[in-house]
Amino acid sequence: MLTTIGFDADDTLWHNETFFRLTQERFTELLCDHCEAAHLQDRLLAAERRNLGHYGFGVKGFTLSMIETAIEVSTGRVPAAVIGEILAAGREMLEHPVDLLPHAHATVAALAAHYRVILVTKGDLLDQERKLAQSGLGDLFDGVEIVSDKTPSIYSAAFARHGTGADQGLMVGNSLKSDVLPMLAAGGWGVHVPHGLTWALEQADPPQDHPRFHEMADLSALPDLVANLAAPHNR
Amino acid sequence: MLTTIGFDADDTLWHNETFFRLTQERFTELLCDHCEAAHLQDRLLAAERRNLGHYGFGVKGFTLSMIETAIEVSTGRVPAAVIGEILAAGREMLEHPVDLLPHAHATVAALAAHYRVILVTKGDLLDQERKLAQSGLGDLFDGVEIVSDKTPSIYSAAFARHGTGADQGLMVGNSLKSDVLPMLAAGGWGVHVPHGLTWALEQADPPQDHPRFHEMADLSALPDLVANLAAPHNR
Repeated sequence: MLTTIGFDADDTLWHNETFFRLTQERFTELLCDHCEAAHLQDRLLAAERRNLGHYGFGVKGFTLSMIETAIEVSTGRVPAAVIGEILAAGREMLEHPVDLLPHAHATVAALAAHYRVILVTKGDLLDQERKLAQSGLGDLFDGVEIVSDKTPSIYSAAFARHGTGADQGLMVGNSLKSDVLPMLAAGGWGVHVPHGLTWALEQADPPQDHPRFHEMADLSALPDLVANLAAPHNR
Repeated sequence: MLTTIGFDADDTLWHNETFFRLTQERFTELLCDHCEAAHLQDRLLAAERRNLGHYGFGVKGFTLSMIETAIEVSTGRVPAAVIGEILAAGREMLEHPVDLLPHAHATVAALAAHYRVILVTKGDLLDQERKLAQSGLGDLFDGVEIVSDKTPSIYSAAFARHGTGADQGLMVGNSLKSDVLPMLAAGGWGVHVPHGLTWALEQADPPQDHPRFHEMADLSALPDLVANLAAPHNR
């Protein structure tokens, strides 16, 4: 039995990592007098990793980590004007129009007609709500969970709250680490739709021979997969 | 009929504004070479107000607004070391131990024995989860909603989800603007428990002669009020 389909948001339904990368390029240009590009990216990633437990996921924490890294790599010599540019770059990310990925609307709409569909996403509360509202997909979802992390217990709670339990649920997303592996651990199906760009802190190896793991190139194949999983004897 | 009691968190169950004020004092000291204290507070408040639609509520947005204000009032001359101090002050807020207000634990426990009790709070997702976990109150609540804003429709949804609708619900909190007025507008009871310190952006006038508005000096009077409202004919 499969009753409930959960979608990740960033880089599953709409572009996200692209804007982080563009902002990091801008950050690298701003700091070019103070640090080599490769070294700078390492220091920024180290700051993001160090701060994750305090800031959580999202643009605000990313902006704070960029500022911290700028001070660190310049040994306190970065001009305030550069910090101001970093603040502005972060605010631009929070204002960026939502750019849906191919097949996102059609896939969610097709599944919403026959199953419960929910959105499970990490990130800043207000920013994720804004993107969902701008996406035009908001009315299709039976439930929305903006969570501080994606763990098996988070998925168990979300699919119990909005569906009939994680074992009758399927989660689709671009992150093996956040969308697929913890959903498999919660007893559900996990479908990986790779995105060209993956943040270093979201890297993970795929599961080996797991009967509930599937992978597809884009969302267009999801309705057929779900139909087959939901009614396997009709195949 | 009254079935469900909603609690605000910051400055209702535990101290919060105190730490914001202490951080603002530190911010004022750090910027004393660049700006007069009163002027600085005005500029910071203006930045917080301007950024609220982008950053939402919470410590991360407050930290970003302090940095923006420091650059602005110094016309770009603030040293990076001062920005580093502001970052550190923000991180300290995110690590500060939770300090429960008087009667918080006893009141929530007493009401949880007879009613559904829920927590409805604004702020950064991870930070609010951390404070709830540290408060020791987490297991008492039947539901927790961390929301980007407190509006009548947010209360209608939260009390429908976890209770029997806003008209059979009561919300208690220190903010007339966020905890009381929108809950009254949603058709529920609103109980104001003033806190000595109120952020300028949370100021509002009390309702006039509203039959479902109550005020009390601290949480200890809440169980008796709720008992009277829930069973008015037994009085």
